Amino acid sequence: MSQREIDIVINQTTQALLRLRGETAAASLAAQLVRRFSELDDIGVDAYLTYLLTDLGPDTAVVDGAIKAYKDEPSQDAIADLADATESPRLKLFRTVNTAPGGISCLLAMRAALLDRRKTMPELRPVERDLQHLLRSWFNRGFLELRQLDWQTPAHILEKLIEYEAVHEIQGWSDLRRRLAPDRRSFGFFHPSLPDEPIIFVEVALTHGMASSIQTLLTTEPEPIDADTDTAIFYSITNCQRGLSGISFGSFLIKRVSAFLQNELPQLVTFATLSPIPGFARWLAEQDPIDVDDQAALTAACANYLLCARRKQLPLDPVARFHLRNGARLERLNPQGDVSDKGLGESHGMLVNYRYSGQDLEANHDALVLDGVVIAHANVIAAAGNDVDPACVSVSPAGVAG
Amino acid sequence: MSQREIDIVINQTTQALLRLRGETAAASLAAQLVRRFSELDDIGVDAYLTYLLTDLGPDTAVVDGAIKAYKDEPSQDAIADLADATESPRLKLFRTVNTAPGGISCLLAMRAALLDRRKTMPELRPVERDLQHLLRSWFNRGFLELRQLDWQTPAHILEKLIEYEAVHEIQGWSDLRRRLAPDRRSFGFFHPSLPDEPIIFVEVALTHGMASSIQTLLTTEPEPIDADTDTAIFYSITNCQRGLSGISFGSFLIKRVSAFLQNELPQLVTFATLSPIPGFARWLAEQDPIDVDDQAALTAACANYLLCARRKQLPLDPVARFHLRNGARLERLNPQGDVSDKGLGESHGMLVNYRYSGQDLEANHDALVLDGVVIAHANVIAAAGNDVDPACVSVSPAGVAG
Amino acid sequence: MSQREIDIVINQTTQALLRLRGETAAASLAAQLVRRFSELDDIGVDAYLTYLLTDLGPDTAVVDGAIKAYKDEPSQDAIADLADATESPRLKLFRTVNTAPGGISCLLAMRAALLDRRKTMPELRPVERDLQHLLRSWFNRGFLELRQLDWQTPAHILEKLIEYEAVHEIQGWSDLRRRLAPDRRSFGFFHPSLPDEPIIFVEVALTHGMASSIQTLLTTEPEPIDADTDTAIFYSITNCQRGLSGISFGSFLIKRVSAFLQNELPQLVTFATLSPIPGFARWLAEQDPIDVDDQAALTAACANYLLCARRKQLPLDPVARFHLRNGARLERLNPQGDVSDKGLGESHGMLVNYRYSGQDLEANHDALVLDGVVIAHANVIAAAGNDVDPACVSVSPAGVAG
Amino acid sequence: MSQREIDIVINQTTQALLRLRGETAAASLAAQLVRRFSELDDIGVDAYLTYLLTDLGPDTAVVDGAIKAYKDEPSQDAIADLADATESPRLKLFRTVNTAPGGISCLLAMRAALLDRRKTMPELRPVERDLQHLLRSWFNRGFLELRQLDWQTPAHILEKLIEYEAVHEIQGWSDLRRRLAPDRRSFGFFHPSLPDEPIIFVEVALTHGMASSIQTLLTTEPEPIDADTDTAIFYSITNCQRGLSGISFGSFLIKRVSAFLQNELPQLVTFATLSPIPGFARWLAEQDPIDVDDQAALTAACANYLLCARRKQLPLDPVARFHLRNGARLERLNPQGDVSDKGLGESHGMLVNYRYSGQDLEANHDALVLDGVVIAHANVIAAAGNDVDPACVSVSPAGVAG
Repeated sequence: MSQREIDIVINQTTQALLRLRGETAAASLAAQLVRRFSELDDIGVDAYLTYLLTDLGPDTAVVDGAIKAYKDEPSQDAIADLADATESPRLKLFRTVNTAPGGISCLLAMRAALLDRRKTMPELRPVERDLQHLLRSWFNRGFLELRQLDWQTPAHILEKLIEYEAVHEIQGWSDLRRRLAPDRRSFGFFHPSLPDEPIIFVEVALTHGMASSIQTLLTTEPEPIDADTDTAIFYSITNCQRGLSGISFGSFLIKRVSAFLQNELPQLVTFATLSPIPGFARWLAEQDPIDVDDQAALTAACANYLLCARRKQLPLDPVARFHLRNGARLERLNPQGDVSDKGLGESHGMLVNYRYSGQDLEANHDALVLDGVVIAHANVIAAAGNDVDPACVSVSPAGVAG
Repeated sequence: MSQREIDIVINQTTQALLRLRGETAAASLAAQLVRRFSELDDIGVDAYLTYLLTDLGPDTAVVDGAIKAYKDEPSQDAIADLADATESPRLKLFRTVNTAPGGISCLLAMRAALLDRRKTMPELRPVERDLQHLLRSWFNRGFLELRQLDWQTPAHILEKLIEYEAVHEIQGWSDLRRRLAPDRRSFGFFHPSLPDEPIIFVEVALTHGMASSIQTLLTTEPEPIDADTDTAIFYSITNCQRGLSGISFGSFLIKRVSAFLQNELPQLVTFATLSPIPGFARWLAEQDPIDVDDQAALTAACANYLLCARRKQLPLDPVARFHLRNGARLERLNPQGDVSDKGLGESHGMLVNYRYSGQDLEANHDALVLDGVVIAHANVIAAAGNDVDPACVSVSPAGVAG
Repeated sequence: MSQREIDIVINQTTQALLRLRGETAAASLAAQLVRRFSELDDIGVDAYLTYLLTDLGPDTAVVDGAIKAYKDEPSQDAIADLADATESPRLKLFRTVNTAPGGISCLLAMRAALLDRRKTMPELRPVERDLQHLLRSWFNRGFLELRQLDWQTPAHILEKLIEYEAVHEIQGWSDLRRRLAPDRRSFGFFHPSLPDEPIIFVEVALTHGMASSIQTLLTTEPEPIDADTDTAIFYSITNCQRGLSGISFGSFLIKRVSAFLQNELPQLVTFATLSPIPGFARWLAEQDPIDVDDQAALTAACANYLLCARRKQLPLDPVARFHLRNGARLERLNPQGDVSDKGLGESHGMLVNYRYSGQDLEANHDALVLDGVVIAHANVIAAAGNDVDPACVSVSPAGVAG
Repeated sequence: MSQREIDIVINQTTQALLRLRGETAAASLAAQLVRRFSELDDIGVDAYLTYLLTDLGPDTAVVDGAIKAYKDEPSQDAIADLADATESPRLKLFRTVNTAPGGISCLLAMRAALLDRRKTMPELRPVERDLQHLLRSWFNRGFLELRQLDWQTPAHILEKLIEYEAVHEIQGWSDLRRRLAPDRRSFGFFHPSLPDEPIIFVEVALTHGMASSIQTLLTTEPEPIDADTDTAIFYSITNCQRGLSGISFGSFLIKRVSAFLQNELPQLVTFATLSPIPGFARWLAEQDPIDVDDQAALTAACANYLLCARRKQLPLDPVARFHLRNGARLERLNPQGDVSDKGLGESHGMLVNYRYSGQDLEANHDALVLDGVVIAHANVIAAAGNDVDPACVSVSPAGVAG
């Protein structure tokens, strides 16, 4: 893309903005912008995002005026005026882009591009914040629709499961078909503006007792659902839209799906994950060495890692952080749970179950967030041995009973 | 509703907010809030809205801190921080309410309640602004879906046309059926969160030549569409959601519907309204008296009113202001166009056609907004006589040709 | 319509038949035939149906040949050949007509026309039989779809309820709305080839106890469904397609709807009709006169009529015949149940409840059809007095218990 | 399956029939029968079909009586009575089976089982005829729905394309995806009772000029549709339901799809197949030997085969017979058109294009069926050389022009 072409795009954007009064033209310019943006190469994108930063930022004179007015006569109205004053022209642009076909996808692509440049072009941060602000508003959970994904789902949507699944790669259509067999469930959140694109999806196995091995779970023959099918295992959760990074839907999805499944299959008593421990091997490498083939020693180390390794009070492990902050309980450690290269590499094959227990979620969440206490099953605490600071962990009442 | 009950609602709201971390509880509290709000009587609503104002407003300490940080080190990032600081807790509350079933309807009802109190409780204005800000974002036109409304439409939606139609009341189902006959069209915008509620709808008559009388149009027998059906008359536009007052969709709807009809029926050459002139009689009463039965004199006065009576450069008449600012042209005056009590009362029976001509909309809009020039058909300008300031009106090129 | 035009239609039909090998032409000729038939006046229809009788009847030479072959060598195959030989060319024509848009409606109209002429042109009977045979096959109950009809149903379908309802006329849209209120249900059977046309529909009231007055039922305010809503009253069943006369769906509809409602509302314990007794007054006029204002005497006479007045062992009253043959029980008589002109005229205001009790239907049906025994509640039998032949009636076990 | 179990099934069937008056029981017995039939092993099926033959055949006494009545007093009514008399009880049974869920699939499976036993149990023929008669009536083309099959189609339906495709096997999902790319189309006929099962489907390639090689067509990269996309190649037609064998939909499908595509893409001028010649190699083996590597000689032989090898006046080759009887024209021979093992084996790699030309279909069909004349392109006739009997072939007017 030549410099001239970039200028054209930028020009059109400017025009679109200047002419926002006239909706017809704005809509058609927005459509042009969507098309043009998709054709930009990396340098073009750099230039365009920089243009958004430099030319379409907030008007400091207006901001200063609003601050003065507020200082002169403080009031909620003056604060609202101040809020209006901080709104940058690029926000108006983004809102107009959304009126074009494919506008929302274009904005998601812009945000993805901004995130890609977070390190290389940190100055773009205010543009990214504006976009995040807008997307967070538009992707309010009240607008999301839960859809079951199964073998009756249109192929172009199922194809996206194959494409996006990040936790345990789907090996083509027969693997997918297994994951949608009668003893499996899959659900996604969809936004009305992106009817063919899941925002996030989860894969669930319905099992007899809590699963401990992902390889077994993925390859075992389908089993009929019966009265003893007592467990729902959330074995993979995939965020599909990089442009929505940081706008979290996972916790809400797990809870909605749990409620849905409980209603469909009242015999379910356990809702738990079978989760990776992506940071364990890296952390372990920095500790006193242990024999990783000694499963008891490995389990002890892993229990210590999950219970005690923290960052700002929260678990260091990102997956643990996610589930424990959601209010789940650290339920069970599974040596040899993932013997794939990835599993062996990141956690010496260890997997963990986090258990979601409806009535405890609030209390567990509070214990962690307010007091820094991880709620875990007694067995996990016991496995950790004596090094655990008792102030940091607790057996939940349910854990005692369970 | 007792004071105790109001306290409970307020309490729950507070809890919902305080506990926003725990999504499960927030969702169920949001659902409670939706239910409770719908049960409040007027006094309860007063109290609740006041609570939103006084207890859930922005935190001035935070705002002051952000202002100081910005003053110390001005940057776009600091402005973004400032924008965040101005966000009130009630905005968070509103976003949580949207996650409950019926949440969006509750928020629309809240805004309607705030608008109802604009004069009696002007202090509530900041709450209303927060809500307007949010609704404007969520009802971005990119999220609206155009749906044709016809005799195949579910009854509970058609019923709403009868209920909402404000311009020319629908007299029951046989009147409605006439308005949905093959030579009529109706379209509405719908939002995905309100699938059964039109946001706005328009009624269109497909005619041979431009219609001049609303009574004729409403009662004439259906005619077949043929090659000479050259005109689409937009004879009624109804906003259905008081809670979206001030968030305008009408211009966009007219343009989308025009494009849709043009595609369906390429023989259409004229897209025009048959519109009321709600402010004419009131204005005329303040001028030198004329004989309102003298149709030429009445037409002259009306032409003067529409061309020259202004407020801040824009037409004084609200309907004229709407269509002319959209870029329509003042096309024709129709004495005896509406001989109902309402028509005689508000405009001595005069109606007006505003014509939407795709290629002129931008230019017409600019002429009015930038230069204060109303674009009109030569006949209308001629009818106005010599009093018209030539700087204020212009015959569009199309008008000359037409 | 001129004789020449009739000839054209007949000609085209002949061509369509002769050319059945070439599907393209046949389809377009079938479409022409559908159009033409709808334009025929009564004389044209007479002529066309006569043409179907005289020119498109079975080939007797072929029939005779098949009979001879069968007689020479009797076998199931020879009988199948004989069956083929009896097929008339008009059956082929009817099957081809079905391939045209609107073909099935045309065939239904043809059969309605044939039924209209049953007395005046009895010679057309073989044509009517062919058509009935075909329609009976195509409208096999396995192809019917049960749809709930409510206020969410498209207006053009609801309109048909108003148009067709024959038992208790629907007085416009507000009456219809009442009949679709939350304590009412309506269901129809639809055929895939007639998606916008109910074949038959039923109206049900959900009540506390068994309803006794149709006027009360139609005008009472809606009541909430609660745990005491124990009764579903089928108060109107309407066949919509005269062309399907004699092909019965009513019994199947009642049973499907009962099962549906039982599933939706487990608290329902009674499924019963509130039915007219259309032949009572006529029958009573031929008996020894009674004082029809004496309700006990009227009830006794009515009980006698329903229990004992028979034709070929089955109840004389057509509605009684329908429900009792379906296996329902004669449950209760309701003096003053229908005080409309129609109700007073045909049954001196009497209505009757027939009760459908899942487990008894088979036995009740057999008792009537095999042994001529009407199953009734003990109260009804008691009301009939001593004239009842005990061999003709029986209290069902459920009746004793109930 | 034990003899006892077979007896149970047969018993239940008998009951179902005897009790046909009582619909509730019949429906549930029909459901049982459907389930039981699917569980029968081959011997069980043999026994059950024999039972249908021997115990549920027509009543010869009734047939004889109807014959006598007809002979005594011949009339169309008597013939209709005779037709009724020939109906066997198993037809009633089949009609009842259709009221059960899965009933139609059960009947299709029964007919498939009967066709499988055509040679081994020829005595079952009358049962098969009854079933064919019924299915032919129910699968009247007027009830079929044309659906486009593309990448938006639910996976469980697309999976059936992979499963059923018989002409050019689909090698998994990526092959399927290629066949559904933007320059390809696929369409199926569906019956309302089998919404998830195509009856028949066709695969079409949109090309620039007529395709000559199936391997090229299946593997070439997708091309954009443009103004020069002038040809639709029907390269595969697959009947999916063995139970509908002999009830032909292919010709109708080709014509419906052609009309659909012509409407979507007016630039299409050629509609043709790329077809196998399954009987060529077998036929050639019985002729004077030729060098099959000499493409001219091979083409000449193939032209002779297609033009002149006949059975009862119609082409000997089954695919030729199908298309030429539909009215298509023998357009072009393609040596090396299918170099797969199958193609080389059955036709030494030759493929043929049959061209469907709307206005000629009727005339071409008549020429073949009435006069035994195959309509072909002049080039094909020329290729055949001098051995062709001029009375058997003709260049169509279009052929001359084309």
